[in-house]
Amino acid sequence: MATQRILDFLATRRPTGPCLVVDLDVVRDNFRAFEKALPDSKIYYAVKANPAPEILRLLAAMGSSFDTASVAEVEMAMDAGAPADRISFGNTIKKERDIARAYQLGIRLFAVDCVEEVEKIARVAPGARVFCRVLTDGEGAEWPLSRKFGCVPAMAVDVLRHAKGLGLDAYGVSFHVGSQQTDLTAWDRALADAKTVFATLTDEGIVLKMVNMGGGFPTRYLRDVPAAKAYGQAIFSALRKHFGNAIPETIIEPGRGMVGNAGVIKSEVVLISKKAANDNVRWVFLDIGKFGGLAETMDEAIRYPIVTAHDGTETAPCVLAGPTCDSADVMYEKTPYPLPLSLTIGDEVLIEGTGAYTTTYSAVAFNGFEPLRSYVI
Amino acid sequence: MATQRILDFLATRRPTGPCLVVDLDVVRDNFRAFEKALPDSKIYYAVKANPAPEILRLLAAMGSSFDTASVAEVEMAMDAGAPADRISFGNTIKKERDIARAYQLGIRLFAVDCVEEVEKIARVAPGARVFCRVLTDGEGAEWPLSRKFGCVPAMAVDVLRHAKGLGLDAYGVSFHVGSQQTDLTAWDRALADAKTVFATLTDEGIVLKMVNMGGGFPTRYLRDVPAAKAYGQAIFSALRKHFGNAIPETIIEPGRGMVGNAGVIKSEVVLISKKAANDNVRWVFLDIGKFGGLAETMDEAIRYPIVTAHDGTETAPCVLAGPTCDSADVMYEKTPYPLPLSLTIGDEVLIEGTGAYTTTYSAVAFNGFEPLRSYVI
Repeated sequence: MATQRILDFLATRRPTGPCLVVDLDVVRDNFRAFEKALPDSKIYYAVKANPAPEILRLLAAMGSSFDTASVAEVEMAMDAGAPADRISFGNTIKKERDIARAYQLGIRLFAVDCVEEVEKIARVAPGARVFCRVLTDGEGAEWPLSRKFGCVPAMAVDVLRHAKGLGLDAYGVSFHVGSQQTDLTAWDRALADAKTVFATLTDEGIVLKMVNMGGGFPTRYLRDVPAAKAYGQAIFSALRKHFGNAIPETIIEPGRGMVGNAGVIKSEVVLISKKAANDNVRWVFLDIGKFGGLAETMDEAIRYPIVTAHDGTETAPCVLAGPTCDSADVMYEKTPYPLPLSLTIGDEVLIEGTGAYTTTYSAVAFNGFEPLRSYVI
Repeated sequence: MATQRILDFLATRRPTGPCLVVDLDVVRDNFRAFEKALPDSKIYYAVKANPAPEILRLLAAMGSSFDTASVAEVEMAMDAGAPADRISFGNTIKKERDIARAYQLGIRLFAVDCVEEVEKIARVAPGARVFCRVLTDGEGAEWPLSRKFGCVPAMAVDVLRHAKGLGLDAYGVSFHVGSQQTDLTAWDRALADAKTVFATLTDEGIVLKMVNMGGGFPTRYLRDVPAAKAYGQAIFSALRKHFGNAIPETIIEPGRGMVGNAGVIKSEVVLISKKAANDNVRWVFLDIGKFGGLAETMDEAIRYPIVTAHDGTETAPCVLAGPTCDSADVMYEKTPYPLPLSLTIGDEVLIEGTGAYTTTYSAVAFNGFEPLRSYVI
């Protein structure tokens, strides 16, 4: 996944310290693949995955819409050239003054998952469109979602009815099948729930118009994942099955699926050591760890492919850890990582599939280390 | 733990958004309590706990030494007025060029835990003092350490012998009993290991001079913790027991114990909701979470006291979560947090004991949220 452009950049520029390099050509290809796989869905790029201005500008120019988590992200999307009607304020947890600010900026599409949030929006964003997030089980996802976002379908009916009563546009339903979702039937189960909400409200004379199918589209780490095309087919079949000939407007919110495989982190081996003379596992310490951008190694959730100059030679299991004085800064220990025996202190390694959820997760100055630098080429 | 000075500051300045306020008077008291409890030990403040320049300047002026994790932290301590001979480069994982840079700055005290690190230091910091970190079991600690730092005592002997052979000053042994350690016998067990290393090397004619007893001194969160005085007595008894009349020079490295109880985070309730009409647990969302500075709620490790304006009234269990679109941004769920039933959206809450390991852990821009602001008064 380290493209020739990324390899050339690293070879020519030789940046010191750990850094992320993102290849815009890959982002462009990913956007087109989503467009092709789901031609009837609008693409709302999840800005939080990687808000680099170059990425936002490219996607804005290609016609993408944007899913944002905060007023700052709304402003980033607008700065990149996206008009307000292509931006969704997708966080269900918003301060009332932030809703007001987004409304002033022209935003008219907001996520909710409870009546309390609906009431804030009704007060400061009159007439806005709202969609209610429904809880899903997250089965089949590598980074399963907690119950943090969404409510049960029965409550979503109450929430949207309340929105309508307060003069808002009860616009639709959203769900998220869990990040890095590889079970194609997950969308089918979630769409069945969405249809229930549509049907119940239609009986009351409230006609919803949109299903926001969220993200969850995986990037390839160590295991193969289905291609965008396979997702598109599975999702289209599920839509047809549940909504028949009255398929609503649909939205998807790829984040990881849009930029994950477009980025590679260059890192350096700081130390290789053992804890006792007879240990059979080496400890390999990199100059990036859990607090420097690889937060998604939490609980060893995401296992990134690591490329070394010694690949193909004999390997042995290693515990992989970061450079900070924090003993929690260990990335892979329960399942040690096989790395070449000839790996040496000072060697560079490439950590692939790191275009999403790395730069912004990085700690601001933990242990005095600067945040992860990023180059978008 | 919110001192009157902190409450006055918040009432007068009314900062918007989440922020940490640190009261230097508390830091001053803590430093004096450590001095009094362990009059024969040198205090090396662990800069990583909170590197605010005001804190470093206060401690430098009071005569504190500094434990640093990176060249950036070395420079911060020097900028605050600490001479190089009061600074230890305490990270066992260092790039060779960072060791060289620290040596150029005058640093002569370095931590190691393997021969590979000793060799780097011998190459670029000739004659420097090194101390070898020994693994401890971490039993009794609330935030137990992994095996990331240190080696078994037998290997520490090899490491220090190697250092001596390469012309370095084999200076001592360090250990860390685990953060927020409340079992006073933990130091006794670790000092027994340290003594073994001293004795073995003495037999070879290598006389170590120092024991670095690390940190682990707790701050008070929800449970009572022994006072500094009790730690001092337990540690002195253990030193006497293992080293008799030949007690070596000793160092302690308080971080959390120096600044934890000096800081309070002011936060705002963004949303209170349920996931289903019949749920008996409310979800309370604050404007700060795991990625905004409260990283130590990971695995619900540290349970901070939370003060509201409604304290004393009836409470009910809540799931406590942060404001980001990340479903992992949930602080307390396995053990819900009791909060007043009358708590309302928009209320301010104070999160106490947050002076350590918050500002620097904060993500640089996750979801577009700015890093935790901090005021030192």
